[in-house]
Amino acid sequence: MKRQLSVKPLLFPMPTPLIAAAHGDERGLFTVAWIGMASGTPPTIGMAVRSSRNTLRLIQASGEFTVNIPRVGMEAEVDFCGIVSGEGVDKFAAAGLTPVPASVVSAPLVEECPFNIECRVVGIHEMGEYRLVLGEIVETHADESVLTASGKVDIGLLDPLMYVPGMQEYWAVGRKVADAYTVGMPIKERM
Amino acid sequence: MKRQLSVKPLLFPMPTPLIAAAHGDERGLFTVAWIGMASGTPPTIGMAVRSSRNTLRLIQASGEFTVNIPRVGMEAEVDFCGIVSGEGVDKFAAAGLTPVPASVVSAPLVEECPFNIECRVVGIHEMGEYRLVLGEIVETHADESVLTASGKVDIGLLDPLMYVPGMQEYWAVGRKVADAYTVGMPIKERM
Repeated sequence: MKRQLSVKPLLFPMPTPLIAAAHGDERGLFTVAWIGMASGTPPTIGMAVRSSRNTLRLIQASGEFTVNIPRVGMEAEVDFCGIVSGEGVDKFAAAGLTPVPASVVSAPLVEECPFNIECRVVGIHEMGEYRLVLGEIVETHADESVLTASGKVDIGLLDPLMYVPGMQEYWAVGRKVADAYTVGMPIKERM
Repeated sequence: MKRQLSVKPLLFPMPTPLIAAAHGDERGLFTVAWIGMASGTPPTIGMAVRSSRNTLRLIQASGEFTVNIPRVGMEAEVDFCGIVSGEGVDKFAAAGLTPVPASVVSAPLVEECPFNIECRVVGIHEMGEYRLVLGEIVETHADESVLTASGKVDIGLLDPLMYVPGMQEYWAVGRKVADAYTVGMPIKERM
Protein backbone atom coordinates (compact mmCIF):
# COMPACT_ATOMS: atom_id res chain seq x y z
CA MET A 1 0.00 0.00 0.00
CA LYS A 2 1.49 3.31 -1.11
CA ARG A 3 0.91 6.76 0.33
CA GLN A 4 1.24 10.03 -1.64
CA LEU A 5 3.67 12.40 0.07
CA SER A 6 3.12 15.39 -2.26
CA VAL A 7 6.03 17.31 -3.85
CA LYS A 8 9.24 16.73 -1.89
CA PRO A 9 12.95 16.96 -2.83
CA LEU A 10 13.76 13.39 -1.78
CA LEU A 11 16.18 10.93 -3.36
CA PHE A 12 17.92 8.01 -1.62
CA PRO A 13 20.76 7.87 -0.84
CA MET A 14 22.42 11.27 -1.25
CA PRO A 15 26.12 12.14 -0.95
CA THR A 16 27.12 15.08 1.25
CA PRO A 17 30.40 16.52 -0.09
CA LEU A 18 32.17 19.71 0.88
CA ILE A 19 32.44 22.19 -2.01
CA ALA A 20 35.39 24.59 -1.96
CA ALA A 21 36.23 27.60 -4.10
CA ALA A 22 38.64 30.53 -3.99
CA HIS A 23 38.98 33.90 -5.67
CA GLY A 24 41.64 36.51 -4.89
CA ASP A 25 42.32 36.18 -1.17
CA GLU A 26 38.87 34.80 -0.36
CA ARG A 27 38.05 31.13 0.03
CA GLY A 28 34.70 29.46 0.62
CA LEU A 29 33.42 26.08 1.77
CA PHE A 30 29.94 24.63 2.01
CA THR A 31 28.09 21.30 2.12
CA VAL A 32 25.80 20.15 -0.67
CA ALA A 33 23.64 17.02 -0.95
CA TRP A 34 22.04 18.06 -4.24
CA ILE A 35 24.78 16.85 -6.56
CA GLY A 36 25.17 14.19 -9.23
CA MET A 37 26.84 13.37 -12.54
CA ALA A 38 25.49 15.50 -15.40
CA SER A 39 27.42 13.88 -18.28
CA GLY A 40 30.04 11.26 -19.01
CA THR A 41 31.58 12.87 -22.12
CA PRO A 42 33.40 14.60 -20.66
CA PRO A 43 32.73 13.61 -17.02
CA THR A 44 30.78 16.54 -15.60
CA ILE A 45 29.28 17.22 -12.16
CA GLY A 46 25.94 19.00 -11.69
CA MET A 47 24.99 20.57 -8.37
CA ALA A 48 22.17 22.78 -7.14
CA VAL A 49 23.41 25.75 -5.13
CA ARG A 50 21.15 28.28 -3.44
CA SER A 51 21.70 31.62 -5.19
CA SER A 52 22.47 33.35 -1.88
CA ARG A 53 25.41 31.02 -1.05
CA ASN A 54 28.58 33.05 -0.50
CA THR A 55 30.77 30.41 -2.15
CA LEU A 56 28.63 30.55 -5.32
CA ARG A 57 30.02 34.05 -5.86
CA LEU A 58 33.57 32.65 -5.68
CA ILE A 59 32.65 29.79 -8.06
CA GLN A 60 31.22 32.30 -10.54
CA ALA A 61 34.22 34.65 -10.25
CA SER A 62 36.91 31.94 -10.55
CA GLY A 63 35.06 29.44 -12.77
CA GLU A 64 36.38 26.60 -10.60
CA PHE A 65 35.51 24.49 -7.57
CA THR A 66 36.40 21.25 -5.83
CA VAL A 67 34.17 18.43 -4.54
CA ASN A 68 35.52 16.75 -1.41
CA ILE A 69 34.01 13.50 -0.09
CA PRO A 70 34.03 13.42 3.73
CA ARG A 71 34.41 10.19 5.68
CA VAL A 72 32.48 9.08 8.74
CA GLY A 73 33.94 10.98 11.68
CA MET A 74 33.73 14.33 9.85
CA GLU A 75 29.99 14.75 10.44
CA ALA A 76 30.35 17.74 12.80
CA GLU A 77 32.53 19.64 10.28
CA VAL A 78 30.22 18.72 7.38
CA ASP A 79 27.13 19.79 9.30
CA PHE A 80 28.76 23.07 10.39
CA CYS A 81 29.68 23.90 6.77
CA GLY A 82 26.05 23.39 5.79
CA ILE A 83 24.53 25.42 8.64
CA VAL A 84 26.76 28.50 8.66
CA SER A 85 27.10 31.19 5.97
CA GLY A 86 30.63 31.91 4.78
CA GLU A 87 30.00 35.66 4.71
CA GLY A 88 33.00 37.04 6.63
CA VAL A 89 33.84 33.61 8.11
CA ASP A 90 36.76 31.33 7.19
CA LYS A 91 35.00 27.99 7.60
CA PHE A 92 38.24 26.06 7.01
CA ALA A 93 39.70 27.68 10.13
CA ALA A 94 36.50 27.50 12.17
CA ALA A 95 36.01 23.79 11.42
CA GLY A 96 39.71 22.90 11.70
CA LEU A 97 39.87 21.72 8.08
CA THR A 98 43.05 22.04 5.99
CA PRO A 99 43.02 23.69 2.55
CA VAL A 100 45.71 22.24 0.27
CA PRO A 101 46.51 23.27 -3.31
CA ALA A 102 44.77 21.38 -6.10
CA SER A 103 46.61 20.26 -9.27
CA VAL A 104 44.70 22.10 -11.97
CA VAL A 105 42.25 24.57 -10.40
CA SER A 106 42.72 27.48 -8.01
CA ALA A 107 40.13 26.15 -5.54
CA PRO A 108 41.68 24.29 -2.60
CA LEU A 109 41.17 20.61 -1.77
CA VAL A 110 40.05 19.64 1.73
CA GLU A 111 42.99 17.56 2.99
CA GLU A 112 40.90 15.60 5.55
CA CYS A 113 38.54 14.30 2.82
CA PRO A 114 39.93 11.05 1.33
CA PHE A 115 38.52 11.69 -2.16
CA ASN A 116 38.64 14.98 -4.05
CA ILE A 117 37.44 16.12 -7.47
CA GLU A 118 38.66 19.22 -9.31
CA CYS A 119 36.08 20.92 -11.55
CA ARG A 120 36.05 23.72 -14.09
CA VAL A 121 32.68 25.43 -14.59
CA VAL A 122 31.17 24.79 -18.04
CA GLY A 123 27.70 26.20 -17.40
CA ILE A 124 25.42 27.72 -14.78
CA HIS A 125 21.65 27.48 -15.26
CA GLU A 126 19.15 29.57 -13.29
CA MET A 127 16.65 27.21 -11.61
CA GLY A 128 14.30 29.24 -9.37
CA GLU A 129 16.21 30.29 -6.24
CA TYR A 130 18.98 27.83 -7.17
CA ARG A 131 21.80 27.75 -9.68
CA LEU A 132 22.54 24.42 -11.37
CA VAL A 133 26.34 24.59 -11.58
CA LEU A 134 27.89 22.27 -14.18
CA GLY A 135 31.58 21.50 -13.64
CA GLU A 136 33.77 19.41 -15.92
CA ILE A 137 35.98 17.06 -13.91
CA VAL A 138 39.63 17.90 -14.65
CA GLU A 139 41.33 15.74 -11.99
CA THR A 140 40.51 13.38 -9.11
CA HIS A 141 42.57 12.47 -6.03
CA ALA A 142 42.28 9.65 -3.51
CA ASP A 143 44.12 8.98 -0.31
CA GLU A 144 46.41 5.94 -0.73
CA SER A 145 44.73 4.41 2.33
CA VAL A 146 41.38 4.02 0.51
CA LEU A 147 42.75 2.44 -2.69
CA THR A 148 42.72 -1.25 -3.60
CA ALA A 149 45.87 -2.94 -4.96
CA SER A 150 44.57 -2.21 -8.48
CA GLY A 151 44.14 1.49 -7.70
CA LYS A 152 40.37 1.61 -7.35
CA VAL A 153 38.55 3.42 -4.57
CA ASP A 154 37.35 0.86 -1.99
CA ILE A 155 34.12 2.28 -0.58
CA GLY A 156 34.49 0.31 2.64
CA LEU A 157 37.87 1.96 3.26
CA LEU A 158 36.59 5.34 2.04
CA ASP A 159 33.68 5.06 4.52
CA PRO A 160 31.89 8.06 3.00
CA LEU A 161 29.33 10.04 4.93
CA MET A 162 25.92 10.13 3.24
CA TYR A 163 22.93 12.40 3.78
CA VAL A 164 19.38 11.18 4.37
CA PRO A 165 16.86 13.86 3.36
CA GLY A 166 13.53 14.06 5.15
CA MET A 167 14.85 12.49 8.35
CA GLN A 168 17.83 14.91 8.15
CA GLU A 169 20.37 12.37 9.29
CA TYR A 170 23.90 11.36 8.31
CA TRP A 171 24.43 7.66 7.69
CA ALA A 172 27.34 5.37 6.88
CA VAL A 173 27.42 2.83 4.06
CA GLY A 174 26.86 -0.78 5.05
CA ARG A 175 27.81 -3.91 3.14
CA LYS A 176 28.33 -5.08 -0.41
CA VAL A 177 25.19 -6.65 -1.88
CA ALA A 178 26.28 -7.74 -5.38
CA ASP A 179 28.56 -7.10 -8.36
CA ALA A 180 27.13 -4.80 -11.05
CA TYR A 181 27.10 -5.95 -14.69
CA THR A 182 27.00 -9.48 -13.25
CA VAL A 183 24.05 -10.08 -10.90
CA GLY A 184 21.54 -9.22 -13.65
CA MET A 185 23.03 -11.52 -16.29
CA PRO A 186 20.83 -14.55 -15.46
CA ILE A 187 17.72 -12.48 -16.29
CA LYS A 188 19.29 -11.46 -19.62
CA GLU A 189 20.22 -15.06 -20.42
CA ARG A 190 16.71 -16.38 -19.94
CA MET A 191 15.19 -13.68 -22.22
CA MET B 1 49.36 10.78 0.99
CA LYS B 2 47.10 11.37 -2.02
CA ARG B 3 47.32 9.82 -5.46
CA GLN B 4 46.00 11.48 -8.65
CA LEU B 5 43.56 9.20 -10.47
CA SER B 6 43.08 11.41 -13.58
CA VAL B 7 39.63 12.31 -14.93
CA LYS B 8 37.01 9.83 -13.70
CA PRO B 9 33.21 10.07 -13.22
CA LEU B 10 33.30 9.10 -9.54
CA LEU B 11 31.11 10.36 -6.70
CA PHE B 12 30.31 8.50 -3.46
CA PRO B 13 27.75 7.24 -2.75
CA MET B 14 25.44 7.14 -5.77
CA PRO B 15 21.78 6.12 -5.90
CA THR B 16 20.69 3.58 -8.53
CA PRO B 17 17.00 4.18 -9.34
CA LEU B 18 14.90 2.69 -12.12
CA ILE B 19 13.63 5.31 -14.57
CA ALA B 20 10.36 4.57 -16.35
CA ALA B 21 8.57 6.32 -19.21
CA ALA B 22 5.73 5.57 -21.61
CA HIS B 23 4.44 6.94 -24.90
CA GLY B 24 1.56 5.52 -26.92
CA ASP B 25 1.69 1.76 -26.38
CA GLU B 26 5.43 1.70 -25.65
CA ARG B 27 6.97 1.70 -22.21
CA GLY B 28 10.62 1.85 -21.20
CA LEU B 29 12.69 1.17 -18.09
CA PHE B 30 16.38 1.68 -17.33
CA THR B 31 18.78 2.12 -14.43
CA VAL B 32 20.66 5.38 -13.81
CA ALA B 33 23.26 6.24 -11.18
CA TRP B 34 23.99 9.69 -12.58
CA ILE B 35 21.11 11.54 -10.94
CA GLY B 36 20.70 14.25 -8.32
CA MET B 37 18.61 17.25 -7.30
CA ALA B 38 18.96 20.17 -9.72
CA SER B 39 16.85 22.74 -7.84
CA GLY B 40 14.66 23.13 -4.78
CA THR B 41 12.29 25.81 -6.14
CA PRO B 42 10.49 23.93 -7.46
CA PRO B 43 12.03 20.54 -6.52
CA THR B 44 13.64 19.32 -9.73
CA ILE B 45 15.61 16.18 -10.59
CA GLY B 46 18.60 16.23 -12.96
CA MET B 47 19.87 13.05 -14.60
CA ALA B 48 22.44 12.21 -17.28
CA VAL B 49 21.06 9.81 -19.89
CA ARG B 50 23.11 8.40 -22.76
CA SER B 51 21.62 9.82 -25.96
CA SER B 52 21.21 6.31 -27.42
CA ARG B 53 18.96 5.09 -24.56
CA ASN B 54 15.65 3.83 -25.92
CA THR B 55 13.70 5.23 -22.95
CA LEU B 56 15.12 8.73 -23.61
CA ARG B 57 13.04 8.78 -26.78
CA LEU B 58 9.91 8.03 -24.71
CA ILE B 59 10.84 10.72 -22.16
CA GLN B 60 11.29 13.27 -24.96
CA ALA B 61 8.03 12.29 -26.66
CA SER B 62 5.88 12.24 -23.50
CA GLY B 63 7.69 14.93 -21.48
CA GLU B 64 7.36 12.75 -18.37
CA PHE B 65 9.17 10.06 -16.39
CA THR B 66 9.24 8.39 -12.99
CA VAL B 67 12.17 7.72 -10.63
CA ASN B 68 11.77 4.52 -8.63
CA ILE B 69 14.09 3.72 -5.70
CA PRO B 70 14.83 -0.02 -5.49
CA ARG B 71 15.44 -1.80 -2.21
CA VAL B 72 18.09 -4.38 -1.39
CA GLY B 73 16.90 -7.66 -2.88
CA MET B 74 16.13 -6.04 -6.26
CA GLU B 75 19.79 -5.96 -7.38
CA ALA B 76 19.33 -8.53 -10.18
CA GLU B 77 16.40 -6.59 -11.69
CA VAL B 78 18.23 -3.25 -11.32
CA ASP B 79 21.39 -4.63 -12.92
CA PHE B 80 19.42 -6.22 -15.78
CA CYS B 81 17.68 -2.89 -16.54
CA GLY B 82 21.10 -1.22 -16.76
CA ILE B 83 22.73 -3.88 -18.96
CA VAL B 84 20.01 -4.50 -21.55
CA SER B 85 18.67 -2.10 -24.20
CA GLY B 86 14.92 -1.64 -24.25
CA GLU B 87 14.80 -1.69 -28.06
CA GLY B 88 12.03 -4.21 -28.77
CA VAL B 89 12.15 -5.60 -25.20
CA ASP B 90 9.56 -5.11 -22.43
CA LYS B 91 11.96 -4.95 -19.49
CA PHE B 92 9.07 -4.85 -16.99
CA ALA B 93 7.97 -8.29 -18.20
CA ALA B 94 11.49 -9.68 -18.59
CA ALA B 95 12.50 -8.61 -15.06
CA GLY B 96 9.16 -9.49 -13.47
CA LEU B 97 8.50 -5.92 -12.39
CA THR B 98 4.99 -4.48 -12.15
CA PRO B 99 4.05 -1.20 -13.87
CA VAL B 100 1.28 0.63 -12.00
CA PRO B 101 -0.39 3.93 -12.95
CA ALA B 102 1.11 7.12 -11.51
CA SER B 103 -1.08 9.94 -10.16
CA VAL B 104 -0.10 12.84 -12.40
CA VAL B 105 2.11 11.59 -15.25
CA SER B 106 1.58 8.97 -17.95
CA ALA B 107 4.81 7.11 -17.07
CA PRO B 108 4.22 4.06 -14.86
CA LEU B 109 5.56 3.58 -11.33
CA VAL B 110 7.49 0.42 -10.48
CA GLU B 111 5.30 -1.23 -7.85
CA GLU B 112 8.17 -3.22 -6.27
CA CYS B 113 10.14 -0.03 -5.52
CA PRO B 114 9.12 1.38 -2.10
CA PHE B 115 9.69 5.03 -3.11
CA ASN B 116 8.59 6.64 -6.36
CA ILE B 117 8.88 10.14 -7.81
CA GLU B 118 6.78 11.52 -10.67
CA CYS B 119 8.52 14.10 -12.89
CA ARG B 120 7.54 16.41 -15.71
CA VAL B 121 10.37 17.41 -18.06
CA VAL B 122 11.26 21.12 -17.83
CA GLY B 123 14.47 21.03 -19.86
CA ILE B 124 16.90 18.78 -21.71
CA HIS B 125 20.48 19.97 -22.21
CA GLU B 126 22.89 18.37 -24.68
CA MET B 127 26.06 17.33 -22.82
CA GLY B 128 28.38 15.43 -25.18
CA GLU B 129 26.94 11.94 -25.75
CA TYR B 130 24.55 12.50 -22.84
CA ARG B 131 21.37 14.46 -22.30
CA LEU B 132 20.94 16.18 -18.94
CA VAL B 133 17.22 15.68 -18.36
CA LEU B 134 15.64 18.10 -15.87
CA GLY B 135 12.35 16.93 -14.37
CA GLU B 136 10.17 18.90 -11.98
CA ILE B 137 8.86 16.66 -9.19
CA VAL B 138 5.06 16.67 -9.32
CA GLU B 139 4.32 13.88 -6.80
CA THR B 140 6.11 11.36 -4.57
CA HIS B 141 4.89 8.02 -3.20
CA ALA B 142 6.17 5.79 -0.40
CA ASP B 143 5.14 2.35 0.69
CA GLU B 144 3.42 2.53 4.09
CA SER B 145 5.91 -0.06 5.37
CA VAL B 146 8.85 2.39 5.05
CA LEU B 147 7.21 5.36 6.79
CA THR B 148 7.73 6.50 10.37
CA ALA B 149 4.75 7.35 12.59
CA SER B 150 5.17 10.99 11.53
CA GLY B 151 5.05 10.07 7.84
CA LYS B 152 8.75 10.43 7.00
CA VAL B 153 10.71 7.92 4.95
CA ASP B 154 12.83 5.77 7.30
CA ILE B 155 15.95 4.92 5.32
CA GLY B 156 16.58 1.80 7.42
CA LEU B 157 13.14 0.47 6.47
CA LEU B 158 13.52 1.69 2.87
CA ASP B 159 16.86 -0.20 2.66
CA PRO B 160 17.73 1.43 -0.68
CA LEU B 161 20.22 -0.13 -3.05
CA MET B 162 23.16 2.15 -3.84
CA TYR B 163 25.72 2.04 -6.63
CA VAL B 164 29.47 2.18 -6.11
CA PRO B 165 31.22 3.48 -9.26
CA GLY B 166 34.74 2.31 -10.04
CA MET B 167 34.37 -0.97 -8.16
CA GLN B 168 31.02 -1.46 -9.95
CA GLU B 169 29.24 -2.90 -6.94
CA TYR B 170 25.85 -2.52 -5.29
CA TRP B 171 25.90 -1.79 -1.58
CA ALA B 172 23.36 -1.36 1.22
CA VAL B 173 23.21 1.55 3.64
CA GLY B 174 24.61 0.92 7.10
CA ARG B 175 23.90 2.82 10.29
CA LYS B 176 22.92 6.28 11.43
CA VAL B 177 25.95 8.40 12.33
CA ALA B 178 24.43 11.70 13.52
CA ASP B 179 21.55 14.17 13.24
CA ALA B 180 21.97 16.91 10.63
CA TYR B 181 21.51 20.58 11.65
CA THR B 182 22.54 19.42 15.14
CA VAL B 183 25.94 17.69 15.22
CA GLY B 184 27.68 20.79 13.82
CA MET B 185 26.16 23.25 16.29
CA PRO B 186 29.01 23.03 18.86
CA ILE B 187 31.46 24.29 16.19
CA LYS B 188 29.11 27.19 15.41
CA GLU B 189 28.73 28.04 19.10
CA ARG B 190 32.48 28.31 19.71
CA MET B 191 32.97 30.64 16.71
